[in-house]
Amino acid sequence: MEKKIRTVATLSTHSFSVSLDEVLLKNGMEGKRIKVDHPEAAAIIPFVSKDEILMVRQFRYALGKETLEIPAGKLDPGEKPDECVRRELIEETGYEAGHIRLILTYAPAIGYANELIHLFSGHHLRRAREGLDDREISSVETVSLRRLRDMIEKGLIEDGKTLLGLSFLGLIGEGVKT
Amino acid sequence: MEKKIRTVATLSTHSFSVSLDEVLLKNGMEGKRIKVDHPEAAAIIPFVSKDEILMVRQFRYALGKETLEIPAGKLDPGEKPDECVRRELIEETGYEAGHIRLILTYAPAIGYANELIHLFSGHHLRRAREGLDDREISSVETVSLRRLRDMIEKGLIEDGKTLLGLSFLGLIGEGVKT
Repeated sequence: MEKKIRTVATLSTHSFSVSLDEVLLKNGMEGKRIKVDHPEAAAIIPFVSKDEILMVRQFRYALGKETLEIPAGKLDPGEKPDECVRRELIEETGYEAGHIRLILTYAPAIGYANELIHLFSGHHLRRAREGLDDREISSVETVSLRRLRDMIEKGLIEDGKTLLGLSFLGLIGEGVKT
Repeated sequence: MEKKIRTVATLSTHSFSVSLDEVLLKNGMEGKRIKVDHPEAAAIIPFVSKDEILMVRQFRYALGKETLEIPAGKLDPGEKPDECVRRELIEETGYEAGHIRLILTYAPAIGYANELIHLFSGHHLRRAREGLDDREISSVETVSLRRLRDMIEKGLIEDGKTLLGLSFLGLIGEGVKT
């Protein structure tokens, strides 16, 4: 158990905040903890076919580079994970999914963030609109699982939610029979 | 591409910091980004046998509760991932691994952190010392993969690195033949 003594300082953007807290550690000493107070998020593996998924290329400021990853976003206030993931899929790719299914909910950065990500798979995609969220997305790409495995082997896919979702479905990793 | 205009404020602990930056977005607008500037980290799945691993129970301040997860920690300055993971395994469990292997390197929280986690597996464990790092670890537990799968199904294992490591090895998830 670690107990907050006080919050020393806080940083905020419009969608989440970070606090620096003084805490009482379990050994009785005082320490400092940084806590990212982040809304829940949802991500989706959108299957174009049995062997192909949609991915988005976008610039990630924290990493300082573009990444290729599955569509995802933060839940709006009052929004449910399934509503969020359907909205984000349309905003980021222009496609809607006829069927979605929750794979897993997990905490990506347990050492400093309270974020939970709800990971979905999506099937029966159909074009819902033209034009993308160009504040964030550079391009939408259809990627085969074979190419994805090759990219992962080369270290080109670093995004945790993408790797976890596909691994948990048994589509990438050392358990795959290829 | 998003370009930093200036850092507005920074929070720091002894091991990492967070900045709030004003940035130029790719559509030409200005925006704010929070960036967790975090050292690389390493985690290990320590196999006690083919069907059992060591896990540690510890309080996670950001989540406000205890979690059961694989041993892990931040790289010290100048330390290599394999050195870090051997050190953390001993500190957190009292065991050393005769053989370790890198499974995967990934970015857990791509939306706000530059952290990279190097995920290892460890075999041929032997007792290296008594006594644990009691600032962090509440207990060390030997957990069978069968029990772990059951706990995951009940939503009791939320830690991303634990879930990704075991999934990528094909030991949990929907690809497992049980």
